[in-house]
Amino acid sequence: MSEEENIINLKDLGEFGLIDRITKKIKSYQNSTLLGPGDDAAIIKSEKNILISTDMLVEGIHFDMSFTPLKHLGYKSVIVNLSDIYAMNATPSQITISLGISSKYTLEAIDEFYDGVFLACEKHSVDIVGGDITSCLNGLTISITALGEANPKDIVRRSEAKENDLLIVSGDLGGAYMGLNVLQREKEVWKNNPNMQPELDDFNYILERQLKPEARKDIIELFKDLEIKPTSMIDISDGLASEIFHICKSSNVGCQVYENKIPIDPETYKTSMDFNTNPTVSALNGGEDYELLFTINQKDYEKIKNDPKLTAIGHITNKDQGINLIGNGDTVTPLKAQGWNHFNS
Amino acid sequence: MSEEENIINLKDLGEFGLIDRITKKIKSYQNSTLLGPGDDAAIIKSEKNILISTDMLVEGIHFDMSFTPLKHLGYKSVIVNLSDIYAMNATPSQITISLGISSKYTLEAIDEFYDGVFLACEKHSVDIVGGDITSCLNGLTISITALGEANPKDIVRRSEAKENDLLIVSGDLGGAYMGLNVLQREKEVWKNNPNMQPELDDFNYILERQLKPEARKDIIELFKDLEIKPTSMIDISDGLASEIFHICKSSNVGCQVYENKIPIDPETYKTSMDFNTNPTVSALNGGEDYELLFTINQKDYEKIKNDPKLTAIGHITNKDQGINLIGNGDTVTPLKAQGWNHFNS
Repeated sequence: MSEEENIINLKDLGEFGLIDRITKKIKSYQNSTLLGPGDDAAIIKSEKNILISTDMLVEGIHFDMSFTPLKHLGYKSVIVNLSDIYAMNATPSQITISLGISSKYTLEAIDEFYDGVFLACEKHSVDIVGGDITSCLNGLTISITALGEANPKDIVRRSEAKENDLLIVSGDLGGAYMGLNVLQREKEVWKNNPNMQPELDDFNYILERQLKPEARKDIIELFKDLEIKPTSMIDISDGLASEIFHICKSSNVGCQVYENKIPIDPETYKTSMDFNTNPTVSALNGGEDYELLFTINQKDYEKIKNDPKLTAIGHITNKDQGINLIGNGDTVTPLKAQGWNHFNS
Repeated sequence: MSEEENIINLKDLGEFGLIDRITKKIKSYQNSTLLGPGDDAAIIKSEKNILISTDMLVEGIHFDMSFTPLKHLGYKSVIVNLSDIYAMNATPSQITISLGISSKYTLEAIDEFYDGVFLACEKHSVDIVGGDITSCLNGLTISITALGEANPKDIVRRSEAKENDLLIVSGDLGGAYMGLNVLQREKEVWKNNPNMQPELDDFNYILERQLKPEARKDIIELFKDLEIKPTSMIDISDGLASEIFHICKSSNVGCQVYENKIPIDPETYKTSMDFNTNPTVSALNGGEDYELLFTINQKDYEKIKNDPKLTAIGHITNKDQGINLIGNGDTVTPLKAQGWNHFNS
C-alpha cells in the first residue's frame, strides 16, 4: 500500500468511492456471469437449477475482533456460505456481499477483509456480482448471499435419508470449537496481564479450524468421480448433533450414532481434555466445523470405505427408534441437539 | 395474537424457534421456486436470465425507529430491493432476508416487521426462499437479496443511453425527502416537549412516500403493453442528480435536464418552501423516491407522451456537452451529484 493510500480514510472516500475501489479489484471466473456489479442488478445466465443461500455474521456474536485477523474473517465469511451450496451437492458460482461498517474500521482494515474475500472466491472460482456497503453505528456486520448451480437430478436435499442408509461425515469434528476456547482463554489471560504473550503454538490445527475453515469442495468432486449421490446432506455449522436432528426431522427417520466412530483430531481431543470437556461433547455440540454430513445407500459403501477423508459414524433407522448415541459400553443415550442460541448467550 | 403468544419472548424462542415461526407463515407464488427455506439452500428453476440485487438497511443510518412503524419498515425493506430488479426491466421472483436483532426488540415487533415483508411479497408475487436471523448488540440490521428473471433481450442496463434519447422519469420526486424532513422536525419538537402531539395531518402524501414507498411494477408492465424497451434505466434511490450521473457515466454520454419539467407534487413543493429549501434541490438530491429514470429513443415518445405517470425531463447529448441543468431563464448550470455519503453524516 502506498503512503498516499494510507492517509485516505473511509470518510473521505465515501460509500461510492469505497464501492468503486473494491469493484475494480473484482475478477470474474464464471461464464454464467453476464453482468457483475455496477448496475441495479447483476445478470446471470442459467441453464441448470439455481441454488441460493444466505448468512449474516455480526461482530460480538459470530466473531471477536480481538483475536480474528480481518483477512481470515473475509475468507471465512465467504466459506460458510459456499459450504451451504456444496451441501446441496451443487457448485457455487456467484456471491453478493454487504457490509455494515462502523467508524472504528480503517480503509486498510476493509481492504484486508476483502483480500480474504477475494482469496476464497479465487480458490472456489466464485464471482462477486453485487453488494452493498453502508456505515453502521457499532461493529461490523457481514451479509453474504451465495448462488450455485446444479443439474436437477444431482441436487441433494436434507429430506431423503432412508432407513438402513449409512451416516457419513467428512474430516474431523470439534476442532473449530476447541480453537475458539483456546482463543477466548488467551484473551482472558491477556486482559488480566497485557504483558503476557498468548500461548498459541501448540494449537495450530484447531486455531486454523476456527479462524480459517475450508468448504469441502473436494468431497463434492469425489462424489462425481465415484458416481455417488448421497440420499441426504447438510453442512456442519451448528454441531454434529444439531445437524443429525435436521436430517432426521426433514427425512422423518431415526438414527444410531456410534460414539467411538466420531472422528476427532488428537489436538482437539487433547485440548478438550485440558478444558475438562468430554471430546465427544465438543464434537457433537461444537459448531463451525463446516464438514459435510450425509447419508448413502449401503450399496455405495464399498466405493468410499477406504477414503481417509470420510468416516461412517452410524446408520439411519425407523423414526420410532429415535435418535440415539451408542456409547462405548453399548449404552444407548437419546441424543440432544444443543446447537447455538445467540439470543440466549 | 393470543395471550400465550404475548408472553413468549425472543430469548425463549431462540433462533431456530423464530425461524420456524416465520417460515410457517411464508407463502409461495412462483412456479420457479422448487424448494424454499428449510434446507442449506433454496432451489430455483430457471430458463431465462437471473437478475440479482442486494441492499443492507441499518437502524440509525437508514431508518429511525422513533418514527418508523415496523410494518412499514418491513414493507419498505422489500420494496427497495424489488425496485432494483424492476430497474433492469425484469420481474422480481424471490428474495432472501437476513435480520440482525438486538435485545430491545420483542417478538411482537419482529412479527410486525415480517407482516410488512409478507405484504410486499404478496403484492409483487415474490417468494421468500431463505434468510438468516441472528442477534446483534445494537439496533436492527436488515439485509435483503432479490432475484428476478427476464428474457435476455428485454433486460435494460444503465449503459446503453444514446445521444438524442429522451430522459423520462416516473411519478414525482423529492417527496420522500421532504417526508423525512417533517418526521425529523416533529421528533425534535417532541424531544423538547413530550406532551406535544406531532402535527402530521397535512403531510399524508410525503409521509407515505418516505415510510411506505412503492416499486414501479406498473411502469414495467406499461413497457410490455406499449412494446417499448428503454435504452437505459435506473431506480431513483439516491436522488435524481446522482442517478443521472450514473446513467451518463455508464453510457458515456452527456445530458440536458430542464428544471421546469422535473415533476414535483404540490405537497412536496409547499413543504420544501416551508423548510426554505428550493423544491428543485429536494427533487434533485433528496433520495428514496424509488421512481424509475430511463431513456427512450425519440420514436417511442408518441406512445407515452400522454401518460400522466411519465414525464420527459430532458435529453441525452454528446459526452462533451456535459451534464447540465437548464434553468427557468434558459440558464445552464452543470449538475452536481450530491447523493448520500453515510460515512460522512
